[in-house]
Amino acid sequence: MGAAQSFRDMCDREKNTNVRLSLPAVCIVWQTSMIILFGVFIRYNPEADPHWAEYKKTHNLTDIENDFYFRYPSFQDVHVMIFVGFGFLMTFLKRYSFGGVGFNFLIASFGLQWALLMQGWFHSLDYTDGKIKIGVENLINADFCVASCLIAYGALLGKVSPVQLMVLTLFGITLFAVEEYIILTLIHARDAGGSMVIHTFGGYYGLAISWMLYRPNLDQSSRLQGSVYHSDVFATIGTLFLWMFWPSFNSAISYHGDGQHRAAINTYLALASTVLTTVAISSFFQKHGKLDMVHIQNSTLAGGVAVGTAAEFMLMPYGSLIVGFCCGVLSTLGYIYITPFLEKRLKIQDTCGIHNLHAMPGVIGGIVGAISAAGATVDVYGHEGLVETFDFKNEFEHMVPTIQGGHQAAGMCVAICFGIGGGIFVGAILRLPIWGDPADDNCFDDEVYWEVPEDEESIPPILQYNNHMQNKDM
Amino acid sequence: MGAAQSFRDMCDREKNTNVRLSLPAVCIVWQTSMIILFGVFIRYNPEADPHWAEYKKTHNLTDIENDFYFRYPSFQDVHVMIFVGFGFLMTFLKRYSFGGVGFNFLIASFGLQWALLMQGWFHSLDYTDGKIKIGVENLINADFCVASCLIAYGALLGKVSPVQLMVLTLFGITLFAVEEYIILTLIHARDAGGSMVIHTFGGYYGLAISWMLYRPNLDQSSRLQGSVYHSDVFATIGTLFLWMFWPSFNSAISYHGDGQHRAAINTYLALASTVLTTVAISSFFQKHGKLDMVHIQNSTLAGGVAVGTAAEFMLMPYGSLIVGFCCGVLSTLGYIYITPFLEKRLKIQDTCGIHNLHAMPGVIGGIVGAISAAGATVDVYGHEGLVETFDFKNEFEHMVPTIQGGHQAAGMCVAICFGIGGGIFVGAILRLPIWGDPADDNCFDDEVYWEVPEDEESIPPILQYNNHMQNKDM
Amino acid sequence: MGAAQSFRDMCDREKNTNVRLSLPAVCIVWQTSMIILFGVFIRYNPEADPHWAEYKKTHNLTDIENDFYFRYPSFQDVHVMIFVGFGFLMTFLKRYSFGGVGFNFLIASFGLQWALLMQGWFHSLDYTDGKIKIGVENLINADFCVASCLIAYGALLGKVSPVQLMVLTLFGITLFAVEEYIILTLIHARDAGGSMVIHTFGGYYGLAISWMLYRPNLDQSSRLQGSVYHSDVFATIGTLFLWMFWPSFNSAISYHGDGQHRAAINTYLALASTVLTTVAISSFFQKHGKLDMVHIQNSTLAGGVAVGTAAEFMLMPYGSLIVGFCCGVLSTLGYIYITPFLEKRLKIQDTCGIHNLHAMPGVIGGIVGAISAAGATVDVYGHEGLVETFDFKNEFEHMVPTIQGGHQAAGMCVAICFGIGGGIFVGAILRLPIWGDPADDNCFDDEVYWEVPEDEESIPPILQYNNHMQNKDM
Repeated sequence: MGAAQSFRDMCDREKNTNVRLSLPAVCIVWQTSMIILFGVFIRYNPEADPHWAEYKKTHNLTDIENDFYFRYPSFQDVHVMIFVGFGFLMTFLKRYSFGGVGFNFLIASFGLQWALLMQGWFHSLDYTDGKIKIGVENLINADFCVASCLIAYGALLGKVSPVQLMVLTLFGITLFAVEEYIILTLIHARDAGGSMVIHTFGGYYGLAISWMLYRPNLDQSSRLQGSVYHSDVFATIGTLFLWMFWPSFNSAISYHGDGQHRAAINTYLALASTVLTTVAISSFFQKHGKLDMVHIQNSTLAGGVAVGTAAEFMLMPYGSLIVGFCCGVLSTLGYIYITPFLEKRLKIQDTCGIHNLHAMPGVIGGIVGAISAAGATVDVYGHEGLVETFDFKNEFEHMVPTIQGGHQAAGMCVAICFGIGGGIFVGAILRLPIWGDPADDNCFDDEVYWEVPEDEESIPPILQYNNHMQNKDM
Repeated sequence: MGAAQSFRDMCDREKNTNVRLSLPAVCIVWQTSMIILFGVFIRYNPEADPHWAEYKKTHNLTDIENDFYFRYPSFQDVHVMIFVGFGFLMTFLKRYSFGGVGFNFLIASFGLQWALLMQGWFHSLDYTDGKIKIGVENLINADFCVASCLIAYGALLGKVSPVQLMVLTLFGITLFAVEEYIILTLIHARDAGGSMVIHTFGGYYGLAISWMLYRPNLDQSSRLQGSVYHSDVFATIGTLFLWMFWPSFNSAISYHGDGQHRAAINTYLALASTVLTTVAISSFFQKHGKLDMVHIQNSTLAGGVAVGTAAEFMLMPYGSLIVGFCCGVLSTLGYIYITPFLEKRLKIQDTCGIHNLHAMPGVIGGIVGAISAAGATVDVYGHEGLVETFDFKNEFEHMVPTIQGGHQAAGMCVAICFGIGGGIFVGAILRLPIWGDPADDNCFDDEVYWEVPEDEESIPPILQYNNHMQNKDM
Repeated sequence: MGAAQSFRDMCDREKNTNVRLSLPAVCIVWQTSMIILFGVFIRYNPEADPHWAEYKKTHNLTDIENDFYFRYPSFQDVHVMIFVGFGFLMTFLKRYSFGGVGFNFLIASFGLQWALLMQGWFHSLDYTDGKIKIGVENLINADFCVASCLIAYGALLGKVSPVQLMVLTLFGITLFAVEEYIILTLIHARDAGGSMVIHTFGGYYGLAISWMLYRPNLDQSSRLQGSVYHSDVFATIGTLFLWMFWPSFNSAISYHGDGQHRAAINTYLALASTVLTTVAISSFFQKHGKLDMVHIQNSTLAGGVAVGTAAEFMLMPYGSLIVGFCCGVLSTLGYIYITPFLEKRLKIQDTCGIHNLHAMPGVIGGIVGAISAAGATVDVYGHEGLVETFDFKNEFEHMVPTIQGGHQAAGMCVAICFGIGGGIFVGAILRLPIWGDPADDNCFDDEVYWEVPEDEESIPPILQYNNHMQNKDM
């Protein structure tokens, strides 16, 4: 044991997890860059600018028709999903709650700034003055963009340093913006809730990075690779805020009126259905029919992912229930069979099971979107409704639903390719031995990057025991 | 001890808590039924349908006047109350947090689907095509409907199996929809915040079931029938989200404009007042004036329940404060005196004290509603305001406030009767020995239905002690 | 040891922490007073009154233009910040979570009622009938007013009795209302997010009280003056809800349209920037570059405070990032250097570090506001925009931006003076030996004012050890 220990100590010494210079440097340099780039490029759009007083008169609008009032409540719900939802979902490990919620906070805060720039250049550039004009819809899209990187973090939870996460986010946001531009603008696929652009891309991006960073000796940290009772309850906070606000996620950037309304209804129903099949499968595949908290925390959300693309389409209420039904089953089976398979055979270690919660349901969502787009008819949507829903305007004026279905499928493929390709590229960068990542026996441990308080509760008994012994000896 | 143990083991064997077949079967069969019924019956209403583009023109509306924008923020608040509010309020037991929040999640997800159908048949059926047309208001009502079953769960927390809870919910939603139709439509009582239809019904429904399922030997589980420090903090999350969002609960389905506005103000004030009297009574009736967390977690909410019916009436700000004042006092005294009385004398075991938080304040709310309706005048409401507030339209065109007061009181009685009668009926069904409920010494324990992680914190000291002893022996 | 112990016991006896009479008395008397004063003074404003039906016709409005729909979503976010945000931020101590979230709940509930009256007399008095007319904007302002007292509580956390907190709140709200009237109405300073009126005032108010209540022997409670792992995770819930909803805080009472829109964007950006610099400084100043949870929980919020006054001004997106950048740096350095300095040299014990989170960033916010007001031009704002943003109407019709800048600075000074002066005055009152505050060795302990559950987790090992010993003895 002494030899093994000293060898491990040596590895620890080689694995320098001290980020005292690299982390502050990255944060300060990148934040300074953001300030300069924002100074050069970013301004308010007409609805957030004081000239709105004149703008609303010329456009015959009232104050309440400012886009702020259409989207701000949904924006705040999405914001909660990003910071509390994703953050607390990752607190489930017994000694990585600080890292789960804290690093989520860090990379989301950086990512949304970079996303405003990247997405702005592609979608909100005002060619008259070369400035990006932002409003509440840009904030929502920035949060969406960040979500893809937080999904990727889920696969890597506990195994990477905060500096690696910052790098992952910088590249992830960049790839996202390009991929989104190709899928939404060039291919003209619709993706209101981001099944393809957010979940599929983010899921495969994270899995590919995890594959590149495979740790053969991760079992050395197995003592920390589980939950304790209260950390599971904390994670449930994340689950529920994601689950409850998912209708806002899928409807946040749908078009005004019936688009947002329908997207919220479809998502609400799909998620409800998912809960029942998740419980069914979790109970059926466990000894004695006991439920597994991991499934309840994660698979119950799969329906929201899978209904994302088609949320604003005429999926119909029963269609949403069917999508939710299937995703609950498949996602839970994924946790039982696919996650161990990925780890053993494909050497992909997926801490949070993002394959089952994001990648696979995202692909299902893309397929559901393609099918329901291809099946759209003027009868069901009305002429104006069809044009509005699928944005058959300008150069796509003569598009028809069947061809739109093909475009949706093409978008799906782009998302997968960007996810896997980007993940391999970024994973290669993250393998460089300069990022301060933990050793195999130090994973899943907040001690590495956080000042952790001594836990009173676990100490007194020993002390008291010792005192007791001393008293006895006297 | 050996004999007692073996007898208890035998009971455990008789009490088969294995739900591996029944729970998945119920979930899958019921979810499949939902899909079929939704396929046959449920469609989008005109505000969530793509024909909205034409609809808004013919009705001279703008997008922002889609009901979605009037009600969606309140809907999301109510959604949080149902899943995080009720769910976390039930995490207070030391080893039933998974069951509290997890089963709440399960039955709410099932219940809201069944509620959309049941309430739809009564209130949203389009007779031209025989379809139920749903929009955001239906989602809110479905959440409301579910609340009554979650209240009932509060009385039974820790003593029933998830299969029993599914049965309780199926019947509870059905009874709710019938009772609500009688009270709101036939009797024409007003009940914006559901003091009568939700809280009184749900409270008595749960208490009657608990009476039917009385466990004389429940003290065998008394070791688990309390909280630990952190489980109490978790429960406070539930309390606060219920408390903060209650103004949304009471105003969510009030009529547009001043109705929603006034309901929110009245609820805000009643709840603030309740907190102070709860603290006063809790401190005064405890030794040394120490506060009891149970009171703070529960009784502070009673004002929101009691102001429900009258929230959209001209209760006046001081009236709201008075209602809150009384409820804080009565509800806290309920925890101190009535709950023990119910258990000892009436054989009603009420785990969460729903009598003090829902049933009694609900009745108070019904009375307050009847009095304030009977006292309404054209002077205070204006003619149009009176018609709008009390819906004196169509066949009720010639209704007057004093008679409306009588109708309110009649509605109250219907709610109580449905609660008690329905509870006895459902309780009888739940006594069948086929539902997998736990034995008396197994109550309040997540181990029965959940894979519970081994708790690192409580183990090491022993191990270390043992190691220490072994070292000493050497 | 025996002598020291008996001396300490004597002190405890002198320090009577029994609030069984005083706390209920204060709660009941004050709540009764509220009911009477509300009965005399408070009514609904036209937008919450049933005469709205006529009002909207005469003013040519539709239901959706009721102020309720402009402000209610923001109000609910602010409400969450007050009760969950501030409440959970104060749960970080290992054994003061009940007191942190519970007393926050108590004083906020009282404070908002008193604030409706105090602010109402100054701002919403209808001189035709002598009544205060309230609507949703008054509820938001009441929550804002309460925030200042909750900030002050942060400095005193764990060292005062609930009765003292009620007194602090009564005077705090009164001082706030006067100070706010002077700053906003008499001096005509603008302060949308309350950097000056809320944070600067509240911060210095709390610090001055803490200075008056200096406890030289507070180290006797040092065993309890830290966090445990899970209490830190609880506190993160508070941090995140404050952080996420701060855009609503700063935009809640901005003027309709672009004002609210811009305030939300500026706050969103400032907060994102703060997170990165907080992480940078926290890591750089710790041994081994490990992050300190105290900084992440608190300093990440400083940007929201500092952008408060200028949130609705044309601060520009990059300006918001710069403000956030500086505040993250200064606030974190404050925790590292200034808090220990305040305690050792100035005898100000600041439990939560409100100097670094509220007082100092508030002052920065006032300065940023003054500079950005002074630099406003018709070119940037447009004529109507300038009038709307700075409220250059009525007697201030001829105001110019440069002079407005001076008024902003004057407002800043008033806030500081009221904070320090008021704090010394109230501190003197709180030093009276009648309030039931804890002894120096009893601070930070929930046992003093709460029935605390016995913690199963920490007990069994001992019991089991004892049982083990007994078995061995046999």
